[in-house]
Amino acid sequence: MTHACRGFNEIEFQTRLAKAQSAMAKAGLDALLLTTHPDIYYFTGFLTRFWESPTRPWYLILPQSGEPVAVIPAIGASLMNTTWISDIKTWSAPNLEDDGITLLAETLASCVGKGRVGIPHGIETYLRMPLADFERLKNAPNAPFFTNDQDIIKNLRMVKSNAEIIKISRSCSIADNAFKRVAEIAHEGDALEKVFRYFQMLCLEEGADWVAYLAGGAGPDGYKDVISPATSKPLVKDDILMLDTGLVWDGYFCDFDRNFSLCKPSAAIATIHSQLIEATQAGFETAKPGNRTCDLFHAMDSILTGGTAENENSRLGHGLGIQLTEWPSLIPADQTILEPGMVLTLEPSLATKDGCMIVHEENIVVTHDGARYLSKPSSSTMPTLEVAS
Amino acid sequence: MTHACRGFNEIEFQTRLAKAQSAMAKAGLDALLLTTHPDIYYFTGFLTRFWESPTRPWYLILPQSGEPVAVIPAIGASLMNTTWISDIKTWSAPNLEDDGITLLAETLASCVGKGRVGIPHGIETYLRMPLADFERLKNAPNAPFFTNDQDIIKNLRMVKSNAEIIKISRSCSIADNAFKRVAEIAHEGDALEKVFRYFQMLCLEEGADWVAYLAGGAGPDGYKDVISPATSKPLVKDDILMLDTGLVWDGYFCDFDRNFSLCKPSAAIATIHSQLIEATQAGFETAKPGNRTCDLFHAMDSILTGGTAENENSRLGHGLGIQLTEWPSLIPADQTILEPGMVLTLEPSLATKDGCMIVHEENIVVTHDGARYLSKPSSSTMPTLEVAS
Repeated sequence: MTHACRGFNEIEFQTRLAKAQSAMAKAGLDALLLTTHPDIYYFTGFLTRFWESPTRPWYLILPQSGEPVAVIPAIGASLMNTTWISDIKTWSAPNLEDDGITLLAETLASCVGKGRVGIPHGIETYLRMPLADFERLKNAPNAPFFTNDQDIIKNLRMVKSNAEIIKISRSCSIADNAFKRVAEIAHEGDALEKVFRYFQMLCLEEGADWVAYLAGGAGPDGYKDVISPATSKPLVKDDILMLDTGLVWDGYFCDFDRNFSLCKPSAAIATIHSQLIEATQAGFETAKPGNRTCDLFHAMDSILTGGTAENENSRLGHGLGIQLTEWPSLIPADQTILEPGMVLTLEPSLATKDGCMIVHEENIVVTHDGARYLSKPSSSTMPTLEVAS
Repeated sequence: MTHACRGFNEIEFQTRLAKAQSAMAKAGLDALLLTTHPDIYYFTGFLTRFWESPTRPWYLILPQSGEPVAVIPAIGASLMNTTWISDIKTWSAPNLEDDGITLLAETLASCVGKGRVGIPHGIETYLRMPLADFERLKNAPNAPFFTNDQDIIKNLRMVKSNAEIIKISRSCSIADNAFKRVAEIAHEGDALEKVFRYFQMLCLEEGADWVAYLAGGAGPDGYKDVISPATSKPLVKDDILMLDTGLVWDGYFCDFDRNFSLCKPSAAIATIHSQLIEATQAGFETAKPGNRTCDLFHAMDSILTGGTAENENSRLGHGLGIQLTEWPSLIPADQTILEPGMVLTLEPSLATKDGCMIVHEENIVVTHDGARYLSKPSSSTMPTLEVAS
């Protein structure tokens, strides 16, 4: 595998910008206004965990021609100066009277006059600025016309470059290595919350920059949901333990899980796990350019339910990259046509009993001649942590 | 110290709701609509790392009288059912045609008719839903009138209950214990990115549920900014290493840093560190009910600059709790009157040379008779990691 280096070269960013600008020209947009970490990181390389602080808004303007303009709090100037962005305007934030809005309005006016400015409006997006400030911006003298970005950002970010795929692949490898070591930190009697803490330590020791996401569950028949925090309930010897991590390396996520049985799983659980692997493989084989995301759903669903649509409200996977979850969705309604470079999770689940379920997840990338696994795919046999009986 | 238990009892939530409802009545609002993790966690106890996924929006309606109504993706129903909230409406998300908006509009109509619905609009807030969906909601048949929440949420969340303070205190203690062990993981020659990874492991080992934030820097004269990610640059023996963590226990943050010298610090650095501690203590002594946040700024600034206003664009601290950073801001313009229960950071900084600085940070709570440290306050003497020379 190609060695993963931090950062991107400037050509990568220029290519992303050129594609956005070409799409803006087609869409009749004079600029895009971006406010979130994933969108700003994508076009600038500005990477910081400081987004955890909601105090300050950050703005990036992509004009239809010319260079991007960053309009950001002064606290970020030093870091933004290390990126390829040269036009950086700052204000001292937080400013209770005018938190950058006059500066942003003036900068927009000088970029596009009273032109059309696209802002991401669709599913999986939000505007990261106070609503009152957005109202002020729309009502500023000489304000441009703000409108939908017509999915320009979605369509661009959904197809990853090789450099991005290398980073996601590295995140996956780090998680693979942590999952291999779960027997070191999960034993009969251990509280699930301790297992969660120690699994995050494994991820860090194996090379994660940070562990942005960890969920999971444990029980003899699986788990009731996949988003609850860990409790202090101790693992017992007939539990199935699931850990699902979205760790980050250089700003890019993996997102997959592994199930472990503490001792030998029951025949029913073993069969379900094997069926989940079979469904994953069916999704993998369908993940070819030209097929649609709904085709992946149906390929997996036919293994899981025989295509009876019991699963029709489930999402059996999704995109990932700078976010833990991204477009597209592996659901019947999503008709996105697969292209080389799309990175996806395959995430089939099956109900066991008493409202419990087992979920399996792998990460793949679509290539010209089919899919490639980014996570090391699990075998049909659920791994056993082999507790002393 | 009182033992920190997970969760809150129902009286805590009923008290928060009653205060919000009383404020709504005064403000002439018929309901509040909340969309972000901190606001929804505050009123429900719904705690999950799944907010890391931007795919699905989540809604909570607080009517001016009666119980809260959760309008959420079905994937969250099981977890929401474990909270005190009993009115839970779900839809299968993501839905590309109607991602909960019809359900939300109908629920709002049944709660408030065409009444007035407040949404947080001000600084440090944002609306966590797609803009296109907000437009649809505003244009729904029988839509209510959406307006500013008049800072109801800010004013409530800014003053912490005892139960909240106990959780923040526990986060602080975990970080204190991790900082005590930095000599175990930071040595001459270690890359800063490795120090960051291993410090997060210490935080987890000491009991953090997760490490949502870590920043820092290292250099002989301090660091150029406090938000950059770690590089592979190795520590050298005359470096000052700073680590600043916002770790989370049961949904509540600490946010403070520590500076370490690898060997004995220079006289200039030692003096600066001592001055920062003195400034922190001046802020601490000023943190009494009735004083304002700007008074804390000026108390610290008078030690740092003699009150010359060189610092006037700096923020010398802020609130914290469910977020790494919250209102108020320790800046000259912020006139918030301190009340018992406000939890604050004191965060003075001083320039050293060549654009570098040193920042010190502690966490405190305002009580009836003055402030109390939640972090274990640093001594004037900067700790030394005592590398072998």
